[in-house]
Amino acid sequence: MASYSVDHHLSDREPNIHRAFDNSIDPVLTVEPGEVVRFECRDAVDGQLDLQSTADDVPEVSFDPVHPLTGPVAVEGASPGDVLEVELLDLQHKGWGYTLFMPGEMGLGLLPDEFPDPGIHVWDLEGDVGKFVNGIEVPLDPFPGVIGVAPGEDGAHDTLPPRSVGGNMDVKHLTAGSTLYLPVEAEGGLFSTGDCHAAQGDGEVSVTGIEAEMFVTARFDVREDMDIEQPQFETRGPFTPTGVDEPMYGTTGIDDDLMEATRKAVRHMIEHLHTERGLTRGEAYILCSAIVDLKINEVVDAPNWTVSAYLPESIFPE
Amino acid sequence: MASYSVDHHLSDREPNIHRAFDNSIDPVLTVEPGEVVRFECRDAVDGQLDLQSTADDVPEVSFDPVHPLTGPVAVEGASPGDVLEVELLDLQHKGWGYTLFMPGEMGLGLLPDEFPDPGIHVWDLEGDVGKFVNGIEVPLDPFPGVIGVAPGEDGAHDTLPPRSVGGNMDVKHLTAGSTLYLPVEAEGGLFSTGDCHAAQGDGEVSVTGIEAEMFVTARFDVREDMDIEQPQFETRGPFTPTGVDEPMYGTTGIDDDLMEATRKAVRHMIEHLHTERGLTRGEAYILCSAIVDLKINEVVDAPNWTVSAYLPESIFPE
Repeated sequence: MASYSVDHHLSDREPNIHRAFDNSIDPVLTVEPGEVVRFECRDAVDGQLDLQSTADDVPEVSFDPVHPLTGPVAVEGASPGDVLEVELLDLQHKGWGYTLFMPGEMGLGLLPDEFPDPGIHVWDLEGDVGKFVNGIEVPLDPFPGVIGVAPGEDGAHDTLPPRSVGGNMDVKHLTAGSTLYLPVEAEGGLFSTGDCHAAQGDGEVSVTGIEAEMFVTARFDVREDMDIEQPQFETRGPFTPTGVDEPMYGTTGIDDDLMEATRKAVRHMIEHLHTERGLTRGEAYILCSAIVDLKINEVVDAPNWTVSAYLPESIFPE
Repeated sequence: MASYSVDHHLSDREPNIHRAFDNSIDPVLTVEPGEVVRFECRDAVDGQLDLQSTADDVPEVSFDPVHPLTGPVAVEGASPGDVLEVELLDLQHKGWGYTLFMPGEMGLGLLPDEFPDPGIHVWDLEGDVGKFVNGIEVPLDPFPGVIGVAPGEDGAHDTLPPRSVGGNMDVKHLTAGSTLYLPVEAEGGLFSTGDCHAAQGDGEVSVTGIEAEMFVTARFDVREDMDIEQPQFETRGPFTPTGVDEPMYGTTGIDDDLMEATRKAVRHMIEHLHTERGLTRGEAYILCSAIVDLKINEVVDAPNWTVSAYLPESIFPE
């Protein structure tokens, strides 16, 4: 990545925070193509949890403030039909994060019925490493969970679902060094980001990665030569947690429904982590969300599809 | 991997070939735990295509012989409730392979309506490299598409869908050096393999990888200490086509149906390969099936899920 200098800073204080994608929100900053912005981003639940939080605190969390996003930033010359190029230059966490699952009645996560009680792990983040239980250490590959531009359709759009203009895509490969392309639907693009994750497995199965306050540094450009319907990107990964090919333990989920195949792969991995690695099922669910990757092996061998879950074995102590 | 010597050979001639998973098929070989078998495997359509085949030949292919499997092999002491351990020691192709898509009326593949006419690419396989069009070269990471044991349920079971006892799982990470665990449901296990792929993208979207005649060398063991519901495995990948992290181009599919999100990611990749890399749409579909990986980025940000397709850029000539 070429060297860069930051042209603009956006702190995580008002008025830089908003909680919906909405093309009527005035930009808090307008930049020229080529300029670099460093965004300070709040965590997904906006400071309701801290270093000392426990499972008892999880039911008290209000979802009204989710997700606090930093922006929006308008980019000069970005018009509907253009593509906004976002070069991710750096991501910097602030030393801690958390992964949680919710009470079943909230219905969030891949396996809400199997985890009716809440759980949380608060991670110490030290450089490139996050600390879990039992001596397990997880490599960190930070990225923004929510990154997108304003929809062309008027109104306030909930930040939870991703859309064709991006948003809560949770693409873990949007690491520093990656370039994201977003279809522009509103004048100026109106870019926002937040909900950063210090690490996440493909799937984000408990509905949280390692949620962390973070800085996101990005350079913007406008591409009139591209025509895309949904976000596209260039990345060098890492495609394994350590960036090198390494031993993985895999569980399969085989079913005639792709979502149920996904659930089975994760259930089997939770069982593996419980019986072979001595984790509680709740710890296993959290570890799956933070580090276990889901891959679609085949979607063509009708009527059954194969989804697999991949656990890097290097995270366990010798 | 420890050194080994082959204890038994199974050629791809009768009576070693069968075309269904069926616990009433007598084993053609019975081995002791720890023994090594080298299986010669026919290609998926059983010799109906050859080095000189073209798209005109594809509609003539009969699916009646699909899949010719080599075996079954009984393993002494493997009983229902046990787990059959299969250590994959070597995979060796025979110098050529093919990737095809079918006429739309067959309804096979992820995008049958968008590819009503048949297509095929016959690959020269040279060592670890497969040759595509326009100077594109694909790394080879061979694995058996179909690998499994007989179901406990009596009768002949179609080889197309994978099941809890394995079969057509198309897990591309079952490369040499990997170990597969299969739940045993029939006395002796009754292991069979075939439908080998010299390479395949996660998803196998056109319904074929690089289909190739191949030798599969495996060591068997019986694990009475394991209890699994569906196949599990250990692998070192490779997790990228070259086994090192490298630049990838990604397209997203964002939709409230996981299968449609998958289709969108692949459609967007085909469009990218067509407009940016100059391939025909048929060539692009074939290349997606052979080398593009599908990942589930998130299945929790209701109501929309994110699936992405990853294209390794190193396959293109400088």
